[in-house]
Amino acid sequence: MTIVILVRPQMGENIGAAARIMKNFGIFDLRIVAPRDSWPNKKAEAMAVGAIDILKNAKIFETLEEAASDIQYLVATTARMREMEKPVLDSAVINKKIMENANKGRKCAVMFGPERTGLTNQEVVLADAIVTIPVNEEYSSVNLAQSVAIICYELSRDKKKASSKPERSPMAAKNDIISLFNNLEQQLDKKEFFRPREKRQKMVDNLRNIFLKASLTEQEVRTLRGVITSLAREDKK
Amino acid sequence: MTIVILVRPQMGENIGAAARIMKNFGIFDLRIVAPRDSWPNKKAEAMAVGAIDILKNAKIFETLEEAASDIQYLVATTARMREMEKPVLDSAVINKKIMENANKGRKCAVMFGPERTGLTNQEVVLADAIVTIPVNEEYSSVNLAQSVAIICYELSRDKKKASSKPERSPMAAKNDIISLFNNLEQQLDKKEFFRPREKRQKMVDNLRNIFLKASLTEQEVRTLRGVITSLAREDKK
Repeated sequence: MTIVILVRPQMGENIGAAARIMKNFGIFDLRIVAPRDSWPNKKAEAMAVGAIDILKNAKIFETLEEAASDIQYLVATTARMREMEKPVLDSAVINKKIMENANKGRKCAVMFGPERTGLTNQEVVLADAIVTIPVNEEYSSVNLAQSVAIICYELSRDKKKASSKPERSPMAAKNDIISLFNNLEQQLDKKEFFRPREKRQKMVDNLRNIFLKASLTEQEVRTLRGVITSLAREDKK
Repeated sequence: MTIVILVRPQMGENIGAAARIMKNFGIFDLRIVAPRDSWPNKKAEAMAVGAIDILKNAKIFETLEEAASDIQYLVATTARMREMEKPVLDSAVINKKIMENANKGRKCAVMFGPERTGLTNQEVVLADAIVTIPVNEEYSSVNLAQSVAIICYELSRDKKKASSKPERSPMAAKNDIISLFNNLEQQLDKKEFFRPREKRQKMVDNLRNIFLKASLTEQEVRTLRGVITSLAREDKK
């Protein structure tokens, strides 16, 4: 399971928000290097909401060297390009890369630098790879908690199949739909809707197409049948 | 360019953080429906940092109907599954889906509900599709600004132009569709269709959803308007 390392984070709010989004994506292991403010941190706890357990279990270190000591594959998130010979991963492939390493039994972590400055070059040097989030070059300063959100989101990809939604009401069969059409067109004929007569077929086709596009369920066909009957009824006196 | 709609957001901080991450990903158009606190909002501005222009240019509306009036393809972000017959998109495919629609010249938006409750069913009914972010089922409450971050991140992926294919008849904008709904529901009220009264809202939602599923064009809205008027007219004697 991937570990998140926050290096010298400044704002408790960001630590709390990071914990919350980690838990959202089923990532539970947080390490914090030299938080600016005292620890535990009330602002972090307020932002973590239901993810307070992530904060309680977070491990605090004085240096990145200690925090990363048992890590076998370490990825650094950076906005700026560094003049370093290191593999640079687009955020979209980080999960694949981490999985390759985790599948070899390696302990993997992603680290994030402080809000104002990001990771120092010395910190980035410790990483096996750099990951960048592709942002607008004219405004590339991403909030720390938002970077954690996007990376955790990517790390959780493909872990489970998107939940397939069982159909609540079965799709209507064509005979139901055709009988709905016949009913509607009969009512509209009574109201002399299809005029001029020579355009009737074209108008019917267009009208049928509207309802076909809706992929109606059996229940919806029943509803529309009721609507048509109701609309066509004489007004209550 | 995709528009972000924040519906009844509660915390200024989240509005500001949303603006910042939007700008990070080159998304500039923000609409806000009935923010809980006064507007402009100091806390939003503090969080927006360099994205204050997004806030300054944000448009404020009283209702979602107004905010979405010119939108032709509207996506609702929801955590909970809704008991609604609507296409559900995984966040990973939202960009593809929005691009398909944008390439047809449709104005597209993604909307986000308030922090505590999310979008109401009545709000979701107006959407053409639902997008969900696949999260840990045991802790699925994602911070509003973090949801915006992940969706904006996905929206900025692979921004390449596909050859745009102009539509034969443009998609109806939401104001046309809402006015069609109002007309239909008014006619049905006259006929006392919605009974028992306590089920009216649920019945209205289901009915609206049928027509939303059809992705109506402007021409089709005119056709349906004619159908409703015609059906509701007194029989010729």
